[in-house]
Amino acid sequence: MEFSSKLLENAVYEMSQLPGIGKRTALRLVLHLLRQPETQTHHLAEALLTMRDTIKFCEKCHNISDVELCEICANPNRDASLVCVVEDVRDVMAIESTSQYKGLYHVLGGKISPLDGIGPQELNIYSLVEKVKEGEVKEVIFALSSTMEGDTTNFYIYKQVETYNVQTSTIARGISVGDELEYADEVTLGRSILHRIPFENSL
Amino acid sequence: MEFSSKLLENAVYEMSQLPGIGKRTALRLVLHLLRQPETQTHHLAEALLTMRDTIKFCEKCHNISDVELCEICANPNRDASLVCVVEDVRDVMAIESTSQYKGLYHVLGGKISPLDGIGPQELNIYSLVEKVKEGEVKEVIFALSSTMEGDTTNFYIYKQVETYNVQTSTIARGISVGDELEYADEVTLGRSILHRIPFENSL
Ligand SMILES: [Zn+2]
Ligand SMILES: [Zn+2]
Repeated sequence: MEFSSKLLENAVYEMSQLPGIGKRTALRLVLHLLRQPETQTHHLAEALLTMRDTIKFCEKCHNISDVELCEICANPNRDASLVCVVEDVRDVMAIESTSQYKGLYHVLGGKISPLDGIGPQELNIYSLVEKVKEGEVKEVIFALSSTMEGDTTNFYIYKQVETYNVQTSTIARGISVGDELEYADEVTLGRSILHRIPFENSL
Repeated sequence: MEFSSKLLENAVYEMSQLPGIGKRTALRLVLHLLRQPETQTHHLAEALLTMRDTIKFCEKCHNISDVELCEICANPNRDASLVCVVEDVRDVMAIESTSQYKGLYHVLGGKISPLDGIGPQELNIYSLVEKVKEGEVKEVIFALSSTMEGDTTNFYIYKQVETYNVQTSTIARGISVGDELEYADEVTLGRSILHRIPFENSL
């Protein structure tokens, strides 16, 4: 792409550094901003800068939070003996939206992925093991995505905590509620048969 | 979506104001910025702000430019008697990338679209008519997209300039080079038969 303006080229370049945003999309977004009042660009830039420079993470569960202890960890009605291990804040938001879970979370900040240079040291694993050691936690629930990286991470943590007096579990995987069996992928269908639950528990 | 942080929520909101960026995508982009070094967010914000606040438009053709007269208008080797009317800088970039056109451009900044509140006054049409009036322009080439808005805009400009001594033309539309006839849409195929050219001109 040949740009008629360095300022435009630079804005497009920086925008295209975002994942999934190619040069063409970046140009479209930047031209949109040029057509809108200047305040829109100011608000966007300011929101990103303020977030990036002043964001905090809960000192207990590592979830994104504007205060030192997030709302969930600070809530005395939540069950501190249950800890659900997730990858990032999106998983917390997804599980919270079900209103089904009353325990706490532990946000790892990613999954073990040697190819991307992400080892256990890059993740919030040590603090999870410490929590378990202290004895307050009765059950660790693994809720990472079921990819090779997710499974590796689960197993790594499992080996770290198995010597302590703690239960471990993973969230149930199977056919989505309302899905037709014939359209389900084989792995999911296989798992859902393998991990069948007593009928009375599904009522 | 329930956010655990106002800063995060605000950044996601501003990001999702961009066209084609929903809340989920915005969250993914913002979380990516949080994982990258702070400098990436700083560079992005700065590039957008600098562009928005100091961008210039060529005083002759209205294309985005960092100087008062863009490179194309300032080039004495370009044919100033030919003016190609386009919607925005992307069209200029697309045509320039073919290296086939040696005239100048006139960037309208949009198309007439009453539903979006865009009338002739919102576009750079007056300055085009003035250029034609001055007599330097021998041919006006319409290269707007062939939508209803594009056709309306072409016709509006055509009526403004037809009383002056100027030729008008539109870019040829037809089957893409290399495309199979059977896969072409009917309108395009119809136009390409209607606007057939002498065979020797295609050699
Ligand atoms: Zn917390
Ligand atoms: Zn120019």
